[in-house]
Amino acid sequence: MGALTNMRVIDLTQILSGPYCTMVLADMGAEVIKVEKYPHGDDTRFMGPFQNEESYSFMMVNRNKKGIRLNIKTEEGRNVLYKLVETADVFIENFRPGVAEKLGIDYEELKKRNENLIYCSISGYGQTGPYSHKGGYDIMAQGMSGIMSMTGEHGGKPVKVGMAIHDIAAAVTAVYNILLAHIHRLNGGKGQYIDLSLVDAGLAWTVWEAAAYFGAGEVAKPNGSRHRVAAPYQGFKTKDGHILVGAANQKLWELFCKHVINKEEWIEDPRFLSNKGRQENIEVLEKLIEDILVLAESEHWLKKMEDVGIPCGPIFNYDEVMNNSHILHREMVREYEHPVAGMIKNLGIPAKLSETPGKITSPAPYLGQHTKEVLQQLNIPEEDIRLLKENNII
Amino acid sequence: MGALTNMRVIDLTQILSGPYCTMVLADMGAEVIKVEKYPHGDDTRFMGPFQNEESYSFMMVNRNKKGIRLNIKTEEGRNVLYKLVETADVFIENFRPGVAEKLGIDYEELKKRNENLIYCSISGYGQTGPYSHKGGYDIMAQGMSGIMSMTGEHGGKPVKVGMAIHDIAAAVTAVYNILLAHIHRLNGGKGQYIDLSLVDAGLAWTVWEAAAYFGAGEVAKPNGSRHRVAAPYQGFKTKDGHILVGAANQKLWELFCKHVINKEEWIEDPRFLSNKGRQENIEVLEKLIEDILVLAESEHWLKKMEDVGIPCGPIFNYDEVMNNSHILHREMVREYEHPVAGMIKNLGIPAKLSETPGKITSPAPYLGQHTKEVLQQLNIPEEDIRLLKENNII
Repeated sequence: MGALTNMRVIDLTQILSGPYCTMVLADMGAEVIKVEKYPHGDDTRFMGPFQNEESYSFMMVNRNKKGIRLNIKTEEGRNVLYKLVETADVFIENFRPGVAEKLGIDYEELKKRNENLIYCSISGYGQTGPYSHKGGYDIMAQGMSGIMSMTGEHGGKPVKVGMAIHDIAAAVTAVYNILLAHIHRLNGGKGQYIDLSLVDAGLAWTVWEAAAYFGAGEVAKPNGSRHRVAAPYQGFKTKDGHILVGAANQKLWELFCKHVINKEEWIEDPRFLSNKGRQENIEVLEKLIEDILVLAESEHWLKKMEDVGIPCGPIFNYDEVMNNSHILHREMVREYEHPVAGMIKNLGIPAKLSETPGKITSPAPYLGQHTKEVLQQLNIPEEDIRLLKENNII
Repeated sequence: MGALTNMRVIDLTQILSGPYCTMVLADMGAEVIKVEKYPHGDDTRFMGPFQNEESYSFMMVNRNKKGIRLNIKTEEGRNVLYKLVETADVFIENFRPGVAEKLGIDYEELKKRNENLIYCSISGYGQTGPYSHKGGYDIMAQGMSGIMSMTGEHGGKPVKVGMAIHDIAAAVTAVYNILLAHIHRLNGGKGQYIDLSLVDAGLAWTVWEAAAYFGAGEVAKPNGSRHRVAAPYQGFKTKDGHILVGAANQKLWELFCKHVINKEEWIEDPRFLSNKGRQENIEVLEKLIEDILVLAESEHWLKKMEDVGIPCGPIFNYDEVMNNSHILHREMVREYEHPVAGMIKNLGIPAKLSETPGKITSPAPYLGQHTKEVLQQLNIPEEDIRLLKENNII
């Protein structure tokens, strides 16, 4: 039994942010009913790569859910959705602000049908404020929050974070706020509305950068892989990849010179005498160190550093990550069968809980897989289901 | 009343990940008692910038908490901690695996005193697996999860994400898993143990990259600010900053040429006829576009694109973020008084809840601010408190 076995979620979201949120809820036992638009469903179904014509991207973030197809732009479709909402604990949508109201499925409308409903809206910029009407995607949020401006090569152009950080930020912030609202209900409270934006969710994570800005007026800039106040503490190229060297203080620096790179003379080099000097001369120091590190494999250097207690680690590419013994031991790669795609792999569940661990119990639904089952549960007569189908509602 | 008004959290974490987790719980009404080590407290207290000798970094992630100082390496100190644990719902620590056991405060030990306890451990690599013994910091986790390897300039070196993405990943994953465990208790279940690692928490977010890898064997690489399958869809320099241009399909590309940069002839240019061509010739296209965009201010270009419906947005530096009208409207910058530091600013609360909104009710504690108050609540006699002080336990 998962922790959320008694929670029913009606999910009108698509692409990444909303679906990641409801996947986490589903992993923990919630019954998530994904309502996909008529006729083609979630836009992610058209994103590659494909396996037996099923989208791998879609399958990654929709496991453990039931899927129905419903044309909510029609009155009949909307009425089916209203019936569903009457049975639900949570409703979540990621339309552009204003669209839910036009569709007749905004919070005020649904609250009339279920006053205990927890209603969560995810949007690019939120439901209020001068930018609220704009469409916002992950990369726009990365630009708006400052995260791009602090990521990249030292002195270089802003680069984006390699994964969709703001989509995920909104997703996990939605997860914990939906659980908060659920706890409020379990304690006797009512339902409520949650307004969440991609921008706010990621911005709230930039705490060190905020401390530097509010406390000292410092504006965080791209700094490659370098640490802002310690050197050398960063990535270096090796013969077969990249590694991180964390010689963050004088003692570790001296250990590094003596026992790792055999350059004891650098300890006395006037340019590198103190952390301050090493920071000021980081360009030349970086090159000097890298010229040595490229001569042997990552593993060689990591072992040497571990032997003397210097913080260090690999910079894996994704292929190395997915085949690493520790990652596999932690069950971060899972394999299971999808009825259409066949055997697929997916990422595992990050937290390991002793009593109510998350589980992967079913693959992502194919389009409309559970439409009939869910409508039957709502006691909609067979004849009406047939008509809904004939009239292109489901 | 916050959603977590009935939750009491004993927090033995320091630096960023654990403290961010308990700050979120405190924002939502939980009583968080931060237990700092004797004599100097959380290491973050030594991280700048400082205001009236209080660390701004510390103040950013410890608001709304009570703070006590306690020497848990002594028997008397440990006994005080045991008494605290008997009153608690949640216990959270971020020692290196094995240390809590040595200190006599591991899950098995604390469960004896409170079988309903939710015990959460945050570590670099988790409590199990071949890397579990290693010390792990945010940057090591960025290297291990592959996130660094997919961030940076096209063809360039891996660069780190400009904020501490894995620390925060573990923090927010801890938040929602603690709430899940709390819900299990509210539904009649027992306490439980949560094992969470920085690496697993961030890795679980790389879903698009996992889809590309599992589905097509593609290993995500740094790509600057460029989109992986659409061009031009990326950042460009302007006269006064950087902007994002999202001309993601043929229609938007033509609108961009005609109405934004006045280069209608590029629509017919054989190099740029299709998205495929634009991707193959992105180096030259990027330069051609930037040579035009640097001639005017960001605002000029953003207005032109908005007028014809091309997705776009600013790439703000952190100073621009913190002074932006929309960010301020969303209450993402808050100001309040700290008893020692005076007026300080902090980031706001991302999700806006209609019934149980998060609140900032008190600033971060100065070292030992609530020691006496908390010990008195445990009914420890005044004389014993005096002795604990004399013997350097508190």
